[in-house]
Amino acid sequence: MLEKKLKNKIGIFDSGLGGLSVLKHLISDLPEYEYIYLGDNARLPYGDKTPEKIYEYSKEATDFLFKKGCQLIIIACNTASAQALSRLQKECLKDKKILGVIRPLAEYVADNKFHRIGVIGTKSTIKSGAYQKEINKLNPKIQVEEKATPLLVPLIENSWSKKPETKMILKKYLKSLKDKKINSLILACTHYPLLIKDIRRICGKRILVPDPGKIVSLSLKKYIQNHPELNLEKYKNTKITFYTTDEQELFKKLGSKFLSKKINEIKKAKL
Amino acid sequence: MLEKKLKNKIGIFDSGLGGLSVLKHLISDLPEYEYIYLGDNARLPYGDKTPEKIYEYSKEATDFLFKKGCQLIIIACNTASAQALSRLQKECLKDKKILGVIRPLAEYVADNKFHRIGVIGTKSTIKSGAYQKEINKLNPKIQVEEKATPLLVPLIENSWSKKPETKMILKKYLKSLKDKKINSLILACTHYPLLIKDIRRICGKRILVPDPGKIVSLSLKKYIQNHPELNLEKYKNTKITFYTTDEQELFKKLGSKFLSKKINEIKKAKL
Repeated sequence: MLEKKLKNKIGIFDSGLGGLSVLKHLISDLPEYEYIYLGDNARLPYGDKTPEKIYEYSKEATDFLFKKGCQLIIIACNTASAQALSRLQKECLKDKKILGVIRPLAEYVADNKFHRIGVIGTKSTIKSGAYQKEINKLNPKIQVEEKATPLLVPLIENSWSKKPETKMILKKYLKSLKDKKINSLILACTHYPLLIKDIRRICGKRILVPDPGKIVSLSLKKYIQNHPELNLEKYKNTKITFYTTDEQELFKKLGSKFLSKKINEIKKAKL
Repeated sequence: MLEKKLKNKIGIFDSGLGGLSVLKHLISDLPEYEYIYLGDNARLPYGDKTPEKIYEYSKEATDFLFKKGCQLIIIACNTASAQALSRLQKECLKDKKILGVIRPLAEYVADNKFHRIGVIGTKSTIKSGAYQKEINKLNPKIQVEEKATPLLVPLIENSWSKKPETKMILKKYLKSLKDKKINSLILACTHYPLLIKDIRRICGKRILVPDPGKIVSLSLKKYIQNHPELNLEKYKNTKITFYTTDEQELFKKLGSKFLSKKINEIKKAKL
């Protein structure tokens, strides 16, 4: 039987909805491509799992996206980027590519000559020290101050983002980093851009807080320019298909907040 | 080879540390027994998992406790009590017993003739409607108002219990229940007793907030009196052994808060 040739697409994989905060920038900076988003909502959070399990789940997710015709995959999940990316890259077929979110942010702060960087993320991301390692690979002189801020994901996921309690908690979390005179703050969790306005307000003018989705998207733009062999299919209008391993309705409701755009259809993925 | 005869003990099983808030009352009301506590910390939270997985994990946990010589097991976890208990009870050997935490609390509110009950718990416990069903089985006229309060577990687990933000969040959570004129509030999560003082203060004198561990412990006392065939071994001093499926240090640190008592040794359990 002849198989229909699949077009070359870009895949975005996250343990949940957070990766939509990256996709949001991709479709604005690179609107000419076709995207497939996969959220492994049924098995989140990855942060609590062993590196072996995180690798296994990420492998299933990237295999799924390659089978759907992706030529290039962004692992938007910080935990999976820290724990599984390098192994997945080594095992990946030569003509396919898998990229993460940590490297672009590390390059950004190193290129911009910030010398004292704050990093906030989930307990597991901070414990992995992945940002510190990646930044110091590029420039060992940059001082990296990491802080776990584990309440932010539950606050965002339960729609408390705009309430005063969240602002108070943010202020307490950021105080120690401000005291350490950081000059840039990395949001090392794809959920946090939903709080970026408040985080920037609390950080003040002296601390630059880049939107991670924007940095990843600009870095991908450059990457695609340098890798024409990827041969990504181009279109007049952006095409997006959404997949989740869990309940579709919840994805629709909360996902639209992350994407700043209505999500109409979500398909069920079996990994 | 002759096996040493195991003494008849009481097992307490929870997905994590919360069950220690029940064990605390057991050792005070029933100090003459030997207890084995098992926290399946490596696989928590159970609330996000399918009923089949919750059953499977609970089965492994209860099998482990029976093998260690338990004659009677309390499933302190609300999720497992709601999703797995009845099946486990059906499959249990005749001379062994498995009890949950929902029934004793339902009996308590029904016996005390409260007619409007509030229930707070995790999303999964509230979604299961287990408290409402159990209470209305005993008395269909009791009105049950359920409310998911998903931020409380992360706040407690990240040591924010005593901070003003937690009190503010509690006030917002409890407002709708107070407006509905409930006369008793059930804490349907073994973590919540750590906030019981603040919850009682916010509820005021008109709303009775029983400590679930106390209710379970008094109910167990009655149960043991009515079931002498359990033949539980008695001692001069309480004996307790702790097991966890995850990191022992974290269990020690946070566990002492739940138990209001120092925990010296924790063993690793392989399920």
